[in-house]
Amino acid sequence: MARPATEELRRRNRAALLEQLHRHGPQTRAELTEALGLNRSTIGGLAADLSESGHLQETTGRSTGSAGRPSTLVECVAKSVSVAAVELRFDRVRFALTGLGGEVLDRGELPLEASAGADAAAAATASLLDGAEVAEAVAAVPGLVSGGVVGHSSELGWDGTDLGAALAEATGRKWRVTDAATAGAVGEWSRGDAGEARNLMYLHGGRGLTAGIAVEGRARPGSSIQLGHIVVEPGGRECRCGMRGCLEAEMGAFGFTEAIETTTVAADLGDTKAREALRRSGQYLGRALGAVVTAVGPDEILFGGWLRELYLSSAAAVRSALAETTLPQLRSGLRLRTPALGAEGPLIGAAETGFEAIIDEMR
Amino acid sequence: MARPATEELRRRNRAALLEQLHRHGPQTRAELTEALGLNRSTIGGLAADLSESGHLQETTGRSTGSAGRPSTLVECVAKSVSVAAVELRFDRVRFALTGLGGEVLDRGELPLEASAGADAAAAATASLLDGAEVAEAVAAVPGLVSGGVVGHSSELGWDGTDLGAALAEATGRKWRVTDAATAGAVGEWSRGDAGEARNLMYLHGGRGLTAGIAVEGRARPGSSIQLGHIVVEPGGRECRCGMRGCLEAEMGAFGFTEAIETTTVAADLGDTKAREALRRSGQYLGRALGAVVTAVGPDEILFGGWLRELYLSSAAAVRSALAETTLPQLRSGLRLRTPALGAEGPLIGAAETGFEAIIDEMR
Repeated sequence: MARPATEELRRRNRAALLEQLHRHGPQTRAELTEALGLNRSTIGGLAADLSESGHLQETTGRSTGSAGRPSTLVECVAKSVSVAAVELRFDRVRFALTGLGGEVLDRGELPLEASAGADAAAAATASLLDGAEVAEAVAAVPGLVSGGVVGHSSELGWDGTDLGAALAEATGRKWRVTDAATAGAVGEWSRGDAGEARNLMYLHGGRGLTAGIAVEGRARPGSSIQLGHIVVEPGGRECRCGMRGCLEAEMGAFGFTEAIETTTVAADLGDTKAREALRRSGQYLGRALGAVVTAVGPDEILFGGWLRELYLSSAAAVRSALAETTLPQLRSGLRLRTPALGAEGPLIGAAETGFEAIIDEMR
Repeated sequence: MARPATEELRRRNRAALLEQLHRHGPQTRAELTEALGLNRSTIGGLAADLSESGHLQETTGRSTGSAGRPSTLVECVAKSVSVAAVELRFDRVRFALTGLGGEVLDRGELPLEASAGADAAAAATASLLDGAEVAEAVAAVPGLVSGGVVGHSSELGWDGTDLGAALAEATGRKWRVTDAATAGAVGEWSRGDAGEARNLMYLHGGRGLTAGIAVEGRARPGSSIQLGHIVVEPGGRECRCGMRGCLEAEMGAFGFTEAIETTTVAADLGDTKAREALRRSGQYLGRALGAVVTAVGPDEILFGGWLRELYLSSAAAVRSALAETTLPQLRSGLRLRTPALGAEGPLIGAAETGFEAIIDEMR
């Protein structure tokens, strides 16, 4: 006999069930029983609650076992709850409307003029949202984010810009603002293939270089790391930020942000100057990562944005510089990889950040 | 009327009451009502439970108000729950037996021979513990700690040393092993004056240099930072760890670990060589902190161990190097200070780590 659950416990289990289906897709009641460690009748009750509220439905799905009798699957109703997500880049705003379970219901993109401010970005966002009713709205911005304020973004040229206020003004609702690299980590953990990583670091290469961390899939508060402003060459090149020898300044000298592909193609064709530029850049990147790995101790690093190309072209230089700047104990379990979701991590992660908030709210 | 609390809720409130009294000392029921946001009858019931279990007692305490009528104070019974804590240093094992509420019931210290291994440290610990019955036992070790294993400790010369197993063998009970810097952060947050810091970083200067973080007073898992192995001079001096240009190697050249006081005294007396050594060291420390601050974003840094002396003698150099290696947005809210508990932070923090586990267990 099931012990009669208190309403609090039942609420928590309901959230766990929804999270399970949102993250892992349609499942049979037997699979849910197994995954959640609850008994069948409890699962039945919870599923009934969530069906009544319109979040779940049961369908006759795939056949299981040798008898081939199709089993009933429990699945999310995508349109029952949706999240708006935007990702800001220096030249565009990308938008996705995502339903419960992760289905993308709508997507869009609008150009952003060079040196656009928060108001222009918010206006583009409002236009992409087009009045859609959503439970949560999340904006991913490459930069240092705290509350709704972007403290610094090399990509957008923003310093102390209140994007949260501009979005609220333009759309008439509250937005969460997260940094794109942290969103990338959340996205790759939830929907990519990095779900095994406990302390996942995502590097985001755009016009600036940032890094973000998800600890067991959750954005670590204050995890927005200005990777591009790790000093890799004390007293080196002057950076836009006013400091000297920042990773961004040293790498920027190679013009990669604009032309990583040209350089890697040239290197592949045997251009020694291009090869040397990639090697030096990989070395600087590895050196910056050495400091970050020492401070943060990730178990997996994903090279996102154009850092993907750089990593693929200079992995040996990155690894060798990392070995020169990180204790072996911190490197031994560390995996370096490219992201499974390609360039989509930050946008998908922004949507997942919204769903996480929704499910947490249910608990 | 109070809504009848479920047993789960009651348990959680009981833990909250005990935590409040453990951290803040004796309080009246009225103060507890205010602090916990529970009503008087609930507080009364919880206090009765905890008095019955021997954790709390009510005493006639200080007089309040103009009438001067002494009010009844609720306080912890120190001996009802105790925690054993040890701090390992290169030359000694320090021990404290701490009761609920933070009262130190017993303390001791035993020398440790140079290059002592885990077995010697564990034997000294067993001897200091002297068979005392404790609810939790925690060892603080300056180094990289994961589970019971010390991955690296410059202070002790350990690499991959299973201290947890040695302690279990020597004392017949389970020990938590934490790094001393993280314990320092927890100690200063709980019992020092850093309780306002959300993201508190404690620097521990011994034979090695480590750093640890407490987020809202709690050890951040995996927060053990090998500050001494941040590379501050690419291609610089060879370090014991095999890398080049590590902070420890560059600073070690000045021999501070052994003789910080001699150097600061000499500098005070006008010795220009000593002054220059302190300035250069402060600069290297600031540079290493720049990378760590960029990666971790603390709002307060405490200079513990001999780094306290170094910081007091070279604060300008530390701050100026930090300014050259950290974005202004990350520096603006950052406080640099010396620890309120002097050298006691790590040992006190180890004890607090034990009480945190005990109170969490009650929830």
